[in-house]
Amino acid sequence: MAKPIHSMVRVLEEQRSVDFYLTAFGMEVAERFAFEGFTLVYLRSPESEFELELTINHDQKEPYQLGNGYGHIAFSVSDLEAEHQRVSSAGLNPMPIKEMVYQGRKLAKFFFLQDPDGYRIEVLQRQGRYI
Amino acid sequence: MAKPIHSMVRVLEEQRSVDFYLTAFGMEVAERFAFEGFTLVYLRSPESEFELELTINHDQKEPYQLGNGYGHIAFSVSDLEAEHQRVSSAGLNPMPIKEMVYQGRKLAKFFFLQDPDGYRIEVLQRQGRYI
Repeated sequence: MAKPIHSMVRVLEEQRSVDFYLTAFGMEVAERFAFEGFTLVYLRSPESEFELELTINHDQKEPYQLGNGYGHIAFSVSDLEAEHQRVSSAGLNPMPIKEMVYQGRKLAKFFFLQDPDGYRIEVLQRQGRYI
Repeated sequence: MAKPIHSMVRVLEEQRSVDFYLTAFGMEVAERFAFEGFTLVYLRSPESEFELELTINHDQKEPYQLGNGYGHIAFSVSDLEAEHQRVSSAGLNPMPIKEMVYQGRKLAKFFFLQDPDGYRIEVLQRQGRYI
């Protein structure tokens, strides 16, 4: 059977992204491979085996085009409001907290923020579907 | 602590994508929410809690622009060659199997394929970093 193990995004500056994902989500560098023209960095949270793979192409100077197809990666947290305050204080400029209602019940409580390359990330209160 | 729980992509045709992810990776619909202008579908593999969220915007007619930033989601499998043969037979047109060597050791054995909207997906032999 197939098991989802990572998601890959291309980023311009390795250290800037590593710092962001550590501050925002407690993800640490699990492994790093420096090839001739590119570097791969695997980031892992203590809460999950699923990793984020960063690709840094050494000759890339222009910002990547993010398109309108890929949406986001999502994280759940146990206390959304505390987390919103924490990342605000850390200067990560989260969007306001919102709620999504479906057929009369609260489906999700969440906020978005962007990583240094502009990828959108959703942070959800841990509940219901989003545990 | 923050836990990665899903990745979201926008797709044009719900059933086409649901069929693809079931055939390719054994992912099944865990939950589905039909809103006024869009539908959310959560796909889950028996092997992991990490889900793929499909967003279907009902008024979207043009193919999404995928850009050059987002790379792929990756799955590990226990028998890469059997899996390559299986998805080939299912008409999913995988790329050839390749190997990646790093400092003299085999780091990864993998192939890519595309989902119906053109998102690239990596399938890796389960070993080393990719378990």
